[in-house]
Amino acid sequence: VSQKQVKSRGGVPSKATAFRLSQYLRVLSSEADATGRMPSSTLAKAVGVSDAQVRRDLAAVGQPGLRGVGYDVEHLTQAIRQTLVIHRPWRAVLVGTGNLARALLKYRGFQKQGFEIVGLFDVDANIVGQCIDAMIVMNVETLPSRVKSLRAELGVITVPAEAAQDVAARLVAAGVRGILNFAPTMVRTPANVSVVSVDLSIQFEQLAFQVGQVHDQQHKQTD
Amino acid sequence: VSQKQVKSRGGVPSKATAFRLSQYLRVLSSEADATGRMPSSTLAKAVGVSDAQVRRDLAAVGQPGLRGVGYDVEHLTQAIRQTLVIHRPWRAVLVGTGNLARALLKYRGFQKQGFEIVGLFDVDANIVGQCIDAMIVMNVETLPSRVKSLRAELGVITVPAEAAQDVAARLVAAGVRGILNFAPTMVRTPANVSVVSVDLSIQFEQLAFQVGQVHDQQHKQTD
Repeated sequence: VSQKQVKSRGGVPSKATAFRLSQYLRVLSSEADATGRMPSSTLAKAVGVSDAQVRRDLAAVGQPGLRGVGYDVEHLTQAIRQTLVIHRPWRAVLVGTGNLARALLKYRGFQKQGFEIVGLFDVDANIVGQCIDAMIVMNVETLPSRVKSLRAELGVITVPAEAAQDVAARLVAAGVRGILNFAPTMVRTPANVSVVSVDLSIQFEQLAFQVGQVHDQQHKQTD
Repeated sequence: VSQKQVKSRGGVPSKATAFRLSQYLRVLSSEADATGRMPSSTLAKAVGVSDAQVRRDLAAVGQPGLRGVGYDVEHLTQAIRQTLVIHRPWRAVLVGTGNLARALLKYRGFQKQGFEIVGLFDVDANIVGQCIDAMIVMNVETLPSRVKSLRAELGVITVPAEAAQDVAARLVAAGVRGILNFAPTMVRTPANVSVVSVDLSIQFEQLAFQVGQVHDQQHKQTD
């Protein structure tokens, strides 16, 4: 059963597996040491899953691993990047120029990972034409021609919730293949345009859960 | 084996299960209909895991479900909120007042979920004393007394990477029990203070992966 789950859709990892692969990548880059190898237990502990889960996930990307030797950090990193399709760069346009958009533009992590923001758009005529982070803000009406000329494949939505669906439709019409949605609402797209919604409440919930666990454990120890 | 994974630490869900529980909550609130019931298949499809995984996860929070009848949306929502320890409010202080902090303050989703930002702090003497979103920015030096008087249990870090570890240490010394870290770096805390790091690159990677899958499928269909 577990094998089926990991390898659903004939060898393609599930979304849940893909998420863990991203988490493993972080551990591989932050906890690699001079040996150039990392045991499954290090990955398991850092991500909070079982050793067996790590080995299943990594077998699914063609890295069976050798018991007692650990994974080759460089090979494993490359294999995961290939599976996640981040072994090549992605160009994205950003719609919305509020605080979150400005925070994203300053966030150097994206660029390092191969995600480049190549165009900045807004609906507000007062903001169009302004310069933010060395980019001129363009009118959202010009998305169709700009997406093509900028060779952007992804769109990032940072507009308020009530404008998000309209912007998503404009991005789809302009030909993007995927949307990263930061608006606190669901947006719908045709099946051939993927959407990943970033819901920051989930992170807060995970923190509440973990703090709750620590508290429970301390009570058990002192009771 | 799967049962062990879900129920590791004697009935407490793993971090990976807790993350899926958060995702199920989103689906329960966005896709509930007039029947007040939801089949495991709806949850499975929306989150991208198998039906069996959904049933195992929900059995672990005491909701076995009835085949063919679906889950009671309200009961299940309450059970998950209790497991994630979000059935009661959490008070948090925010350190850093840049674009990301301002975006978080405007983001109404948190308040609705029971996470309240009750204090705003900065290291910059030029910003301390300013009013942002109806709150006076306080000096980070005053964290120990303020965290107590504000009855804050959580800290949110939105300072640049190079300042993050220092701020984390100050929050720990001030007595917070958990930290939500938006700085693009790892911060270390004692074992009794949980840290959840928000790495927005992971979301971008998940989008690249999903777009890559759509592309592959289309090629297979047309080849």
